Amino acid sequence: MSTPSLFSRSARGSVSSIGEAELIRSIRRWLGRASPPAPAGIGDDCAVLRPARGRELLTVDPVVQGVHFDARTPARAAGAKLLKRNLSDIAAMGGRPRAAVVALALDARVSLEWLEAFYRGMSVEGRRRGVPVVGGDVTLLPGSFVATLALTGEAAGRILTRAGSRVDDWIYVTGSLGRSRPTGHHYRFEPRLAEGAWLARRRAVRAMIDVSDGLAKDLAALTPRGAAPAVYARWLPVRPGATVREALCDGEDYELAFSVAAGPGGAALERAWRRAFPRTRLSRIGRFVRAGAVPAGALALGGYRGYEHLRPA
Amino acid sequence: MSTPSLFSRSARGSVSSIGEAELIRSIRRWLGRASPPAPAGIGDDCAVLRPARGRELLTVDPVVQGVHFDARTPARAAGAKLLKRNLSDIAAMGGRPRAAVVALALDARVSLEWLEAFYRGMSVEGRRRGVPVVGGDVTLLPGSFVATLALTGEAAGRILTRAGSRVDDWIYVTGSLGRSRPTGHHYRFEPRLAEGAWLARRRAVRAMIDVSDGLAKDLAALTPRGAAPAVYARWLPVRPGATVREALCDGEDYELAFSVAAGPGGAALERAWRRAFPRTRLSRIGRFVRAGAVPAGALALGGYRGYEHLRPA
Repeated sequence: MSTPSLFSRSARGSVSSIGEAELIRSIRRWLGRASPPAPAGIGDDCAVLRPARGRELLTVDPVVQGVHFDARTPARAAGAKLLKRNLSDIAAMGGRPRAAVVALALDARVSLEWLEAFYRGMSVEGRRRGVPVVGGDVTLLPGSFVATLALTGEAAGRILTRAGSRVDDWIYVTGSLGRSRPTGHHYRFEPRLAEGAWLARRRAVRAMIDVSDGLAKDLAALTPRGAAPAVYARWLPVRPGATVREALCDGEDYELAFSVAAGPGGAALERAWRRAFPRTRLSRIGRFVRAGAVPAGALALGGYRGYEHLRPA
Repeated sequence: MSTPSLFSRSARGSVSSIGEAELIRSIRRWLGRASPPAPAGIGDDCAVLRPARGRELLTVDPVVQGVHFDARTPARAAGAKLLKRNLSDIAAMGGRPRAAVVALALDARVSLEWLEAFYRGMSVEGRRRGVPVVGGDVTLLPGSFVATLALTGEAAGRILTRAGSRVDDWIYVTGSLGRSRPTGHHYRFEPRLAEGAWLARRRAVRAMIDVSDGLAKDLAALTPRGAAPAVYARWLPVRPGATVREALCDGEDYELAFSVAAGPGGAALERAWRRAFPRTRLSRIGRFVRAGAVPAGALALGGYRGYEHLRPA
């Protein structure tokens, strides 16, 4: 798949050649059916939405050039990734996505061809998931490109937070882990929306998180006070070609990790999962134990560091 | 008011010295009571909110270093401005703000002292307006600083959109216009939340917009098809020291412009306004006329260009 460059070599093909009003018209055209008319969409001071059913979920995540995508990432995939990163956060609560707003901060030399592909990729993903882009902002950022998407969602039923795990709970993770960036998984992943909503309906599931900063780091956020995760290397769904360290530390897996009450609930959940999601791998990777009681055969997760967002290149 | 520099001279005083986890802990501390505990606030995959009462409003706006603030802007004021820009959008629909999420993209050399002041400024404004900061993201952006805030609001009653004005409607604007940047108004302004909500309750008011890109440009968005604004220079609330051109083109006024049905409603609205908002200036600046029928004494607004966000410096 060939992709245009982020920065245009000619002034004619760049954002600066058309100015703000025309750019916003173009964005609406590129979004197509993912761009409803104002005031339900782009074109007024705020977007006007029906209120959430049940509780509302709200999250925000950007894609930054050189951090979340680079010249090897197709522009369409970068646009889809911006939405999918946020969808993964909604999935991790067991919620349903509703609508997005997108703030662009970009160099005036950004290529219109690249930007069109970026928005068309976002539009395809938005239409697949029923998520319109209802508003945004465009501003100048010399030398770079930052697109920030805020996503609102809803959860009519139970919400799964990161809190609620207990000692003896089983720990599960979906999909495979590690080497997300070199394999392109970081933009090809599918946010686990159906899986997250299904898990929220099962009482045996106690707590959930999306694995985006590396399992070692994200699992710490799921671990109850006074406990430690006992995770076994041989149970980890390591991506083919990845090491255990990469599976624990790489980040951008966009999988779900969750805890399940000890007892027969785990086996029942696994059977039901295989019927509901025959193509989505589910791995029981360990359990929470009392702090200081991690068995000798388990991984010492404290020795693995997750993805650090503020480490200069 | 002295303010630290955005970039720290020493590695010790910079964001990179503490890393992501400690930075997020610091942000929660700086926000103080504007940071509720998870899952209603920072600390889970999404923030969990009660649904909006009535309809939901959603908007997003950033502050970018060198565009929306610079070395002359106190860090606290830059942080407050980030929230206030978005509050002004909620005000322009007649709504009430609910909760915000903030995505930071910043150079690793950003000063912790500067960032603390930025968040403390945001916190003061958030607490004044009852708007908690419920989530966010932190990512690296070499060489710059972009903070993007998405704000959700609600409107239990009537919403004022940009649509609905008719020929013969009066045009009003709040406050004074022009020279927002040199005078510091661009960060000292008060979002017109009370005024906007009050105007939405008055049936004579037809449509509203916040004046942020210059009145000439923003008024075009309020003008109904087949009409033109007939605005008079002598009626414009030009800020002392500003020219008519500056009042029409400068941008960042963050005032409200709205249309009022022709007839006695205008005079009644002005009397009621003076009782409700004795300290907020209200100016009748003209009316909508049929396109091609702009009186000779009115300004030719087509000759004035508003603020262009994509014009390279």
